[in-house]
Amino acid sequence: MALALSLGRRGQGLCWPNPAVGCVIVKDGRIVGRGWTQPGGRPHAEPVALAQAGEAARGATAYVTLEPCSHHGKSPPCSQALIDAGVARVVCALQDSDPRVSGQGFDMLRAAGIEVTVGVMAEEAAQDLAGFFLKVEQGRPLVTLKLASSFDGRIATATGESKWITGPHARRAVHAMRARHDAVLVGAGTARADDPSLTVRDIGVDRQPVRVVVSRHLDLPLMSQLARTAKDVPVWLCHGPSADIERIRAWEGLGAKLIPCALHGMQIDAGDLLQQLGAAGLTRVFCEGGSALSASLLADDLVDELIGFTAGLAIGAEGLPSLGAMGLDRLAQAPRFQLAETCPVGADIMHRWTRALR
Amino acid sequence: MALALSLGRRGQGLCWPNPAVGCVIVKDGRIVGRGWTQPGGRPHAEPVALAQAGEAARGATAYVTLEPCSHHGKSPPCSQALIDAGVARVVCALQDSDPRVSGQGFDMLRAAGIEVTVGVMAEEAAQDLAGFFLKVEQGRPLVTLKLASSFDGRIATATGESKWITGPHARRAVHAMRARHDAVLVGAGTARADDPSLTVRDIGVDRQPVRVVVSRHLDLPLMSQLARTAKDVPVWLCHGPSADIERIRAWEGLGAKLIPCALHGMQIDAGDLLQQLGAAGLTRVFCEGGSALSASLLADDLVDELIGFTAGLAIGAEGLPSLGAMGLDRLAQAPRFQLAETCPVGADIMHRWTRALR
Repeated sequence: MALALSLGRRGQGLCWPNPAVGCVIVKDGRIVGRGWTQPGGRPHAEPVALAQAGEAARGATAYVTLEPCSHHGKSPPCSQALIDAGVARVVCALQDSDPRVSGQGFDMLRAAGIEVTVGVMAEEAAQDLAGFFLKVEQGRPLVTLKLASSFDGRIATATGESKWITGPHARRAVHAMRARHDAVLVGAGTARADDPSLTVRDIGVDRQPVRVVVSRHLDLPLMSQLARTAKDVPVWLCHGPSADIERIRAWEGLGAKLIPCALHGMQIDAGDLLQQLGAAGLTRVFCEGGSALSASLLADDLVDELIGFTAGLAIGAEGLPSLGAMGLDRLAQAPRFQLAETCPVGADIMHRWTRALR
Repeated sequence: MALALSLGRRGQGLCWPNPAVGCVIVKDGRIVGRGWTQPGGRPHAEPVALAQAGEAARGATAYVTLEPCSHHGKSPPCSQALIDAGVARVVCALQDSDPRVSGQGFDMLRAAGIEVTVGVMAEEAAQDLAGFFLKVEQGRPLVTLKLASSFDGRIATATGESKWITGPHARRAVHAMRARHDAVLVGAGTARADDPSLTVRDIGVDRQPVRVVVSRHLDLPLMSQLARTAKDVPVWLCHGPSADIERIRAWEGLGAKLIPCALHGMQIDAGDLLQQLGAAGLTRVFCEGGSALSASLLADDLVDELIGFTAGLAIGAEGLPSLGAMGLDRLAQAPRFQLAETCPVGADIMHRWTRALR
C-alpha cells in the first residue's frame, strides 16, 4: 500500500478533477502491475496496473489507495475491470465519498466474490487525497499557502524590493511544490508588482498548473508575462461583479478564463472564490500571496497547509508584511497550525504546518 | 580538546568577566584531571584540573581551550602553575588576545622547556569564547538576539496580547539559553508590557544572569517584578542623560545599578550601550526584545547570533511586529545571517543563525 500511495502521488497536480490514485497488483509475493491516474485523469490507476499485469492478474491481490469507481463516467468502471481480470482480493485505503461511488464499488467487488479489505494506511491516503475529498465534500479545493519572508516576516522592503529574499534552493523547492498542485494562485497586487510567470521551471515538468489571479477590478497589465503566455498555459482570472467588460473581453481574447466571484466587503470573498475553483475542477491549489489574499484565506479558515520559507535577513517594520490585516481581537482567535516538518533549504529554512485539529 | 571545550562551556554565563575556559590533563592515555573556570571567574580551569591530577600531572599533557595566563591578576598565573606541576606538553586551541597575556603565556611555558602546540580546534574555541574576544578586542559583549513570534513575525495582537504565542517547550529552551549568557537584556517597552522577572527558572540553575533594561527616561514601574527582586538578582538600568534624578535615586535604593548611556537621535545609542556593558564586565548578552531595541541592534550590525522561535499561528498585519523600523532603503543593506540549525521545539520551531561573513 505504501508503494501504491507513492505511485498515486505521481499524479498530483496532473489529473484533476480526478483523484490521484495509485494501484499495485501482487501475485504470489511478486509485483505484477503498477499504475497511477494518468495526466488529465484518464486512464485510472487500476486499468493501467491491470494492463501491465495481463493474465497474471487472475487470482492476484490489488492494492488501491481509493475505492475503485462503480459508475460509467468517461471510462468504464474500474470495479468491473478488476472483476473481469479475475482479481481475487482488493485491499483499499479509503472508501470514496463521491455519491456516485461511495461504497458501491466495494459492493460490486464483493458481489462478484472478491475479498475486500478497507482502511489500510487510511490516514496517509486521506492526506494525499485531501484535495479530492474537500472538493467532493465541501466543494472547494485543498489550499496550500506558501509565504517566503525575511526573519521578521517581511516579503519586500518599503520601496517594494523583493528580489531576492530567499535563495535559489528555496525557489527551486517552490517550483517542485507548484508541480504537485493543480493550480498556482496569487492576488492582483503580486501579479502587478512581480510580473510573475507562475510556471514550473527547470525541473523537467511538461504539464503546467493553471495560473489563477484574483483581481476584483481586473486591473492587470495586458502586457504582462501572464497575458503573453495565456494561450500556452491556462490563466484563470477571478474578478468581482464590477469588473470592466472591455477588460473581460480583452483577457478572453488573450485566452484567459474569466471567473466572476462574489464580494465580501471590499474584497473578493475567499469562500466563494474557492467554491468557484472547485466547481471548475481544481482539487489542489498552491497560493503564493500576496498579503491581502493570504490574510483573507487564513481569516476564513480556508488554509489546509501552511509552508514558510524564512531567510536569515532582517528588514524591519517599514517592510511589507507577509500577511495583511486579519481583524483578530484575541490571540485565541488566531488560526493555529500543527508542525509537520522543518529543514534547511539552501541558505534558508523551510517549515511546513498543517491545519490543527480543533 | 573536544572534552576541554565542552567543559569550558559549563562556565558560560557564570564566570564573566573571565573567559569560560576548559582544561583536560592526560597522562599515558588516561584523563587524570578536568577543570573549567569556576563561577565568578576563579579559580581558572588549569589549577582546578591540576589539583585533580596531583602528582600525575608530572610529565602529562594539558589540553587548554585558551592560552594560560601569564600575569598576576586575582590569581597567580596559570602558566606558572603548569610549569610547577611538571607538565611536559601544553596543547592550546587559541592564543589570548588580552594584551596582558597575548603570547606571553606560551613564551613562559616554552622557556621552561614545555612543548607547546597552538591551533587545535581553534574555530570551535573561537565560537565558544567569542564573547570574551569581542570584549577584549572591541570593548563590547557578544549579543544573541532571540525573537519569538507567530508564523508572520508578530509578537502580540493589536491589543498587546502576547501570552502565549510560543509554547512551554520553547519557553524552557529560552531559560536554558538565558543561563548560558552573562545577562538578559530587554527594552523598556517589554519591561512595562510584560512585567517579566527575566530569571532562569525550573532548570536547576543557582547563579542568575544580570537583568539589564534599556530605558531612556527610566520610566519603569517601581512596583514591578524587577524592582521587587533587584536586591536578590542584579538589575542594571541603562538610561539616557535626561533621566529623572528622583527615579535614579529610587532605583538605586532598590539595589539596581544605574548606567548612563549616550543617545543616538531619540534612542539610546546601541553601540554605546554595549560599550558600557562590556566595560561593566559582560561578555555574553541575551537580548529578548522588544522590537525597537532589537531593530537598533540589528541596524547597527551589533547582533552576533540570531535565534527565532516560530509558532504555527497567524496574527496578521495589525499585530505588533517583532522588529521595529530599521530605516533600510535597499535589500542589499539588510543585515544577513547564516543558518546554523533549525529544529522543532515542542509545537514550535527554533532556528539559529550566526553573523554572515562579509
